[in-house]
Amino acid sequence: MVKLGYECFKKPDEKNLLSISAALELTHGAILIHDDIIDQSEFRHNQPTVHKKYESEHIKRYQRRSASHYGEGMAIVAGIVGYYGAISLINQGKFPPDLKLKAIDQLANFMTYTCYGEGLDVDLACRQEIKEKDVLTIHTYKTVYYTFIGPLKIGGILAGAGEKELKKFEDYGVPAGIAFQLQDDILGVFGDEKELGKPIGDDIKEGKNTLLYTQAIKKGNISQRKKLTSLWGNKKITLKQVQKVRKIIKKTGSLAYSQKLARELVKKGKKAVPKITNNKNLQEVFSSLADFIIERKR
Amino acid sequence: MVKLGYECFKKPDEKNLLSISAALELTHGAILIHDDIIDQSEFRHNQPTVHKKYESEHIKRYQRRSASHYGEGMAIVAGIVGYYGAISLINQGKFPPDLKLKAIDQLANFMTYTCYGEGLDVDLACRQEIKEKDVLTIHTYKTVYYTFIGPLKIGGILAGAGEKELKKFEDYGVPAGIAFQLQDDILGVFGDEKELGKPIGDDIKEGKNTLLYTQAIKKGNISQRKKLTSLWGNKKITLKQVQKVRKIIKKTGSLAYSQKLARELVKKGKKAVPKITNNKNLQEVFSSLADFIIERKR
Repeated sequence: MVKLGYECFKKPDEKNLLSISAALELTHGAILIHDDIIDQSEFRHNQPTVHKKYESEHIKRYQRRSASHYGEGMAIVAGIVGYYGAISLINQGKFPPDLKLKAIDQLANFMTYTCYGEGLDVDLACRQEIKEKDVLTIHTYKTVYYTFIGPLKIGGILAGAGEKELKKFEDYGVPAGIAFQLQDDILGVFGDEKELGKPIGDDIKEGKNTLLYTQAIKKGNISQRKKLTSLWGNKKITLKQVQKVRKIIKKTGSLAYSQKLARELVKKGKKAVPKITNNKNLQEVFSSLADFIIERKR
Repeated sequence: MVKLGYECFKKPDEKNLLSISAALELTHGAILIHDDIIDQSEFRHNQPTVHKKYESEHIKRYQRRSASHYGEGMAIVAGIVGYYGAISLINQGKFPPDLKLKAIDQLANFMTYTCYGEGLDVDLACRQEIKEKDVLTIHTYKTVYYTFIGPLKIGGILAGAGEKELKKFEDYGVPAGIAFQLQDDILGVFGDEKELGKPIGDDIKEGKNTLLYTQAIKKGNISQRKKLTSLWGNKKITLKQVQKVRKIIKKTGSLAYSQKLARELVKKGKKAVPKITNNKNLQEVFSSLADFIIERKR
């Protein structure tokens, strides 16, 4: 992981950054716990999701019904503890109070954006038709801020960067963050189950708002469109049907379209790196991270 | 509402406190949104709860199934926005950065306690037997911190109070907070539907962990215990059965027991007031708030 942009401005003190990095990881973990409830996901990182774990614990201990409700309740609570634990961690960092306060404010801002994206995602998933523009808006709010812009800016803030310097992270972080989500969506349909840590076809079952879907619907013929519409969001999809979905997404050129867009975005992000820092080593960190986004298999 | 204890230390500046008070209200609102999902509550303040509102909106717009899941998902997101919005509000207050940071840290701490209480509540509700000690532990963590200790300490912190002064709020806030919850539980069973803003018997349907229940079980005869156990947590309870529950709670002396304990706690809290402030007017604010806790009908 890139070291929060901190090194661009001051000599890095890794120990000082530890609680801040942990805070970002914890916030990330917490929103994923809640996201998994919202998306009804059962697996993450090759393990049952948090609400599913509580659910099976409940069944083991009490053999009662409404275990799924128990699981979700406990996971909601666990997520909230994560949000506030992260704030305490930032507070523990050895930085001037005004900078820590700015960092917490940035965290609150980007998490509000993330929630806006999450809400939009849940809401638009109910519509019959969703457009590429909508998908990219969701990606921007739901993913870009908490994965790239937020962490980069928090690093910058704690290093004493001004508004103008912080703004520069956006030229790198926005395209990189969208590319990250596009690759995530590609892996969600074409990835390896073991590498991904979740069952094949989870994104399809969930009927996720992805560019893969919108583009295939746009470019597909009547039969492909009909087939894809009937399978996207089908909770009981078979492996054979998953393969059918994959075939349609490939044949319509939708996979290639997403891959190309992701590559272009990575290129755009990399172009912005020299504006952020003159340090060649650091430029390399930013650039290789951008490349990694679309090379990763998990 | 008491003015955050701020006045005890400095001349109050109401405008400055507005964003802080709003932050506490917002946090309170957010945890109630999540609490209502966890408790499966359908009404609050004479209106459908947030997840229920989203659910009916969904049915109106999309006529689809899984509307309850949509409602809960959107309400989870709304709650998170509330938590972070509150942090932004504290940040907007015109106070020195180190004090705002301490206030935010206090918020994070007391919300962690609240979540611990909430989790304990969810978990212990599944046990066959729950003891008075457990109920009071839940009340302390789940209610005392976010209603009394947290807000009082945040006011104190922003007024420049030291650790020793902040500690004094506990002698008032702990008994007052527990008394508040005891009265809440009494109203939950005996209160007026319109005043309360939620249907009669909601606490009984939910099988809530209350002293009213544990004490009635402890003091009741075999037939009363059997009846109460069968009705407590019954989601389809009738008005006649609610009246039966009320009768058992009265006859076993359980209602009187909770009322007496609440009165004693209020008395204990009031006794601590002179330690907090010498200002007679302020002492009166603290004392009358304590009295109000057990006099309130909603």
